[in-house]
Amino acid sequence: MGNESDQYSTAGSYVTGGEFNRDTNYIEDRIVADASPGTDAQGRQLWPVQAGKYHLVAARACPWANRTLIHRRLLGLEDALSLGMPGPTHDARSWTFDLYPDGVDPVLGLHRLQEAYFNRFNDYPRGITVPAIVDIGTKAVVTNDYAQITLDFDTEWTALHRDGAPELYPDKHREEIDEVNKRVFTEVNNGVYRCGFAGSQEAYESAYERLFTALDWLEERLSDQRYLVGDTITEADIRLFTTLARFDPVYHGHFKCNRQKLSEFDALWAYARDLFQTPGFGDTIDFVQIKQHYYMVHEDVNPTRIVPMGPSLENWLTPHGREDLGGRPFGDGTPPPPPRPADEVPYEHSAEGAGYATPEENAHALANK
Amino acid sequence: MGNESDQYSTAGSYVTGGEFNRDTNYIEDRIVADASPGTDAQGRQLWPVQAGKYHLVAARACPWANRTLIHRRLLGLEDALSLGMPGPTHDARSWTFDLYPDGVDPVLGLHRLQEAYFNRFNDYPRGITVPAIVDIGTKAVVTNDYAQITLDFDTEWTALHRDGAPELYPDKHREEIDEVNKRVFTEVNNGVYRCGFAGSQEAYESAYERLFTALDWLEERLSDQRYLVGDTITEADIRLFTTLARFDPVYHGHFKCNRQKLSEFDALWAYARDLFQTPGFGDTIDFVQIKQHYYMVHEDVNPTRIVPMGPSLENWLTPHGREDLGGRPFGDGTPPPPPRPADEVPYEHSAEGAGYATPEENAHALANK
Repeated sequence: MGNESDQYSTAGSYVTGGEFNRDTNYIEDRIVADASPGTDAQGRQLWPVQAGKYHLVAARACPWANRTLIHRRLLGLEDALSLGMPGPTHDARSWTFDLYPDGVDPVLGLHRLQEAYFNRFNDYPRGITVPAIVDIGTKAVVTNDYAQITLDFDTEWTALHRDGAPELYPDKHREEIDEVNKRVFTEVNNGVYRCGFAGSQEAYESAYERLFTALDWLEERLSDQRYLVGDTITEADIRLFTTLARFDPVYHGHFKCNRQKLSEFDALWAYARDLFQTPGFGDTIDFVQIKQHYYMVHEDVNPTRIVPMGPSLENWLTPHGREDLGGRPFGDGTPPPPPRPADEVPYEHSAEGAGYATPEENAHALANK
Repeated sequence: MGNESDQYSTAGSYVTGGEFNRDTNYIEDRIVADASPGTDAQGRQLWPVQAGKYHLVAARACPWANRTLIHRRLLGLEDALSLGMPGPTHDARSWTFDLYPDGVDPVLGLHRLQEAYFNRFNDYPRGITVPAIVDIGTKAVVTNDYAQITLDFDTEWTALHRDGAPELYPDKHREEIDEVNKRVFTEVNNGVYRCGFAGSQEAYESAYERLFTALDWLEERLSDQRYLVGDTITEADIRLFTTLARFDPVYHGHFKCNRQKLSEFDALWAYARDLFQTPGFGDTIDFVQIKQHYYMVHEDVNPTRIVPMGPSLENWLTPHGREDLGGRPFGDGTPPPPPRPADEVPYEHSAEGAGYATPEENAHALANK
């Protein structure tokens, strides 16, 4: 996903009876350990897991793409899977590589992600979304099916995992993870968009009630257990985290999800900080890009395109006390090492650095449209 | 003031270099105890204080008008000065009496406040603003000079004050009150508008820094004294309060004043609650009208005109602990009695009632444009 503005208005989503609906049709090819049959049981084309064959395109701004950045860090896929990061804002033709020298992705040599979609299907009609995995040889998109991408990272890319990689989708908890993921997707990940893109007061109010009902459920669930499922970090935590990280900086104000801030929940806020402070989570969060993306791309919601200075972010780094609940963050595995220099979030964009854009950065983001 | 949208775009204000500036030209007649000379030293026409001669037009939504509602309550001017309350939203011709039966002010019999301005000057060129004091006999505006209006209530209307009315502009503190008022006006009352109506990222950021610098100053000032000046409630507190009451419901999100919520300050939030819970303050606050006004009138900022459901408001009623700082809220006076039935804020619009509009109320407000 990640091209919400475009999806909102045209290709990837539609508004009916005032309610926002997300297009859930994607390029559904899969990259798997054993690609020999060519297609899976659902008829999805299969590609082989192979180091150096694919390029992940994932904008830091986008919550759906953010999942893949966390997985890549936790599982140690940096050597096997190169990364291209579009800038936070984009024009009607979607994501561009405007933050790189000469504005091209360093591996693909493309200016726009759209080119990789057209290399695959020259009349590709839907949203140009991140995350996308691109075949480096043909510079063509293999898949943008974000939900399947991370599950396949967890279970199919295992030969390329680092030593000590955690089990993010453990067999014994899959049913429960799937169940939690489903509710978190419809009510929270997508629930914030349903509030922000509601086409009527009535649709908004109904979306708001759904969202906060789900957050109250999560608050209760997390009040006596450290993670969403089992006693280790799983796929379920990653999917919830990327929405929570954007809650106070964006969804609270921009999408009118404002019964309270995330920081005004007890368990949910401590849980979010616990993950944020875990290697592989907070170090993927670029607050500047997140705010620029939403406030500058959604002109229907924020016609001035002015990006708020707030909120203060240092609270993300305060003690969370969740260790008292037990849990083993990485299970039998180990935390990942610090991010590589190329993958580091600039200090000024982080919680420590207060997350303020420079005037030059805002001007650059404004110009990219 | 109170017709901010109109002022923003045309008559009452202007944007220069991206910065919002407020028009400070008003109809500056005064209503005074001794009107015999006809004009005062500044050449302002003088009218006599007289019970039953004037009608106050003050929308609950508007912070500048809200000051007059608090003064009228605290000083007990209800019998002497009748009240007409325009609804929260309005069209390009400004405030209307749409909440009354047949849509007319019960004393003036007018549909629009604009008519009373035109009765005074048939080519009145500036914003049609509240508060306005109207001469009932001629149905013509006497003054809309909101800053002078409340000072004159305090010092000129004394013959009509209730027994036990507090001294809101005491001689011995006037210099300090004026000084505080000046900074609060430029940096806070108007500072939130400077953020919300900034025409560029740069102007917004500069406005944000000014606003929060002033709020930090107030936080410090109020950390060891109960009220802004002296040890009793004064004009200065009333002027700050009406902005603080709107901070979390409106300015935080709608105007991007979001370094933190008011409820995330210590002293300032306790101070605001202390006043809110004092008779004459919180009982003038209609959260529904406040939110409808800003979110529906400022289409430049909120084109969807959807009104947020949040924030939760019950926190306004929590204990504030400010009694420990001493202070004598009403000095040698007494608290006012409860509001008269005609002046009561509907329960559903109050902090106790959660401040949610009904679908019918939102539909009505939407239609008034």
